[in-house]
Amino acid sequence: MTFEQMWADLHPVGRSSSSGGYFRQPFSSAERECLAWFLEEAHRRELRVESDGFGNVVAWWDPPAPSATPGVLTGSHLDSVLDGGAYDGPLGVVSSLAAIDLMRERGVTPTRPVGVGAFVEEEGSRFGLACLGSRLATGVMGADRAAALTDPDGVRLGDAWDAAGLDPTTGSDLLAGVGCFVELHVEQGRDLVERERAVGAASMIWPHGRYRFDFTGQANHAGTTRMEDRVDPMLTYAATALAAAEQAGLAGQRATFGRLEVAPNGTNAIPSRVTAWLDARSGTDEGLAALLATIEERAHDRAASDGTSLSVTPESVSGAVAFDDDLTARIVAGHDWPVIPTMAGHDAGILAAAGVPTAMLFVRNPTGISHSPEESAPMADCLAGVEALADTLERLAG
Amino acid sequence: MTFEQMWADLHPVGRSSSSGGYFRQPFSSAERECLAWFLEEAHRRELRVESDGFGNVVAWWDPPAPSATPGVLTGSHLDSVLDGGAYDGPLGVVSSLAAIDLMRERGVTPTRPVGVGAFVEEEGSRFGLACLGSRLATGVMGADRAAALTDPDGVRLGDAWDAAGLDPTTGSDLLAGVGCFVELHVEQGRDLVERERAVGAASMIWPHGRYRFDFTGQANHAGTTRMEDRVDPMLTYAATALAAAEQAGLAGQRATFGRLEVAPNGTNAIPSRVTAWLDARSGTDEGLAALLATIEERAHDRAASDGTSLSVTPESVSGAVAFDDDLTARIVAGHDWPVIPTMAGHDAGILAAAGVPTAMLFVRNPTGISHSPEESAPMADCLAGVEALADTLERLAG
Repeated sequence: MTFEQMWADLHPVGRSSSSGGYFRQPFSSAERECLAWFLEEAHRRELRVESDGFGNVVAWWDPPAPSATPGVLTGSHLDSVLDGGAYDGPLGVVSSLAAIDLMRERGVTPTRPVGVGAFVEEEGSRFGLACLGSRLATGVMGADRAAALTDPDGVRLGDAWDAAGLDPTTGSDLLAGVGCFVELHVEQGRDLVERERAVGAASMIWPHGRYRFDFTGQANHAGTTRMEDRVDPMLTYAATALAAAEQAGLAGQRATFGRLEVAPNGTNAIPSRVTAWLDARSGTDEGLAALLATIEERAHDRAASDGTSLSVTPESVSGAVAFDDDLTARIVAGHDWPVIPTMAGHDAGILAAAGVPTAMLFVRNPTGISHSPEESAPMADCLAGVEALADTLERLAG
Repeated sequence: MTFEQMWADLHPVGRSSSSGGYFRQPFSSAERECLAWFLEEAHRRELRVESDGFGNVVAWWDPPAPSATPGVLTGSHLDSVLDGGAYDGPLGVVSSLAAIDLMRERGVTPTRPVGVGAFVEEEGSRFGLACLGSRLATGVMGADRAAALTDPDGVRLGDAWDAAGLDPTTGSDLLAGVGCFVELHVEQGRDLVERERAVGAASMIWPHGRYRFDFTGQANHAGTTRMEDRVDPMLTYAATALAAAEQAGLAGQRATFGRLEVAPNGTNAIPSRVTAWLDARSGTDEGLAALLATIEERAHDRAASDGTSLSVTPESVSGAVAFDDDLTARIVAGHDWPVIPTMAGHDAGILAAAGVPTAMLFVRNPTGISHSPEESAPMADCLAGVEALADTLERLAG
């Protein structure tokens, strides 16, 4: 199975016929189909499959003789955001399998195990916490706390694990034999386009966080309540959303309100409550804290004049993550790959923060668009990514 | 069954134990229980029940000898907005039954039929169109168009009718024998409080409309997309919501965005689409048109600078409705009931517009709050409302 064949096999799975976007939420039938595809491809290549109690999987290409050196892990994830693109996640998994094929064609015999991993719920699109699988595998998050997370329909992750036949009490040993991790990913921006390079490596991940803003007001009749008598949390929210975008723009940072719940959400009722999730990112930890402080201050100012109330709950906050300088230097040596920062979170960031020497490779994205049906990468660049990953794995395990 | 007993019987039906608000959406189990309660009370009073193919019901107190004079209809509705109050709708139905009891105690014998009606889906909380039952009963809306309406879960009204055992092809004869309609309703404002009156009558209903605003942008990654590269429909929406509230406040009108749908509604994705429903009201038809034009203009201005696009679809627009001056004068003669306008739509407005001589009575609401769990009316004022309605029906049919 060539890269192109594998890509074509995955193309229809979980794809919306109306938008062309992907709905591969963890433990949904579409995502399970992606996993089944992965296991079949691993089997076809006679890779040794290990899995854990959380839904993470690694397919190992073992050296002919047992090696004392811990393995090189690559791979990425198979899930998508809601209505997401085809590349974010699967490109890393498909490229890893294709890189093994290419190494075998080159006659490479690994001196240490080479693993292709697929981490579960990287996007947080179902249970709200990004990089959930890698957080669990590294132990930075406990299974009990994770089991209590619920999806928008109120289904607990613990029950989703049950339904998928997983036993979270068995924990995860997947990373025990991992000496380093290299994740290949489509670029989510236009840095490589501007530098005219098909492939790059990552220097660091921007600090980022998700914060829940609960705006509370007073439900009332939309027709009979005078504008001056209202306590309308929608107005406080709207002003906050505009203030957040303005402040992030001024400071070269990122602030997004992309998820919202309104109660009671009736056309002729002033809402009693608006819950909105802020995604905020900045080049430094101090910058992220300052961005959040400014948004909160402007939200509270507006709440005071609207008579509404506001509480802000950080749901996940990740500090700056620097990738392994030595590993990255070793990978890019002799190549023309620029080393660039990324504003997106990745499982690689979780493993790096947990002490695993970690690097990333990016493949050029002509539009920079991601988390969207329009996300794309040219086939020639994808194949350049496969070659870059094969070179990297050969250098680390050849 | 006294007013208090009937009120206590209805109190728990469809009530949320968390908010204390009511969820009595049409054809839900809670709303069907309210209807079963109504039919039982009608039976207890030996009223003759008529129903139509849409879910509307009238319970008739017939005169001893057949009368050539068409009947006097009273009543209101049993459904609620999402998380609504106990009074909006049910107060009119319970008060009508109690008024018949009071007339009987007084020894009144009707000279023409007196009917207690319960119109279905007055709030539009499930199928999106307010006063749906009265629109169908008067014929201002056709059954075919109504059957195609869908609820937020995608269920067609036609299928909901089927499931409720209704046959919409039989149409409605309910209003054939109706000579006039008097609807009693809790006030949704503080006019009677300021005038220190327990009961009032209605002069007119403000023009009002529901308009769907579809804001379309470009889904993208919340972390990697620079603020200046975004096409974010959430920002266009937020600016529009603030502009609408500001303009309505300046002009003494009403504009509310209380219902919202965001796609894909993910924390780490810039939305591709925000759909928001505007509820707009004004004292005159010209005022409503001018309010909408201003909001649309400001929305389009913002869309142009955001790079987003916008379409506005009127879902229902009701012109000013004047209640019947002669009928109202006859009702209030000799009483101290002020005659006041209402900014809320009612089935009475639909019947009035369809040519049925129509009047309304209001019962004082101390906070003015409505469409909210906090909606209330003191028991003494409710009983004053029952007496006022009994006086009115006696004057019209005694």
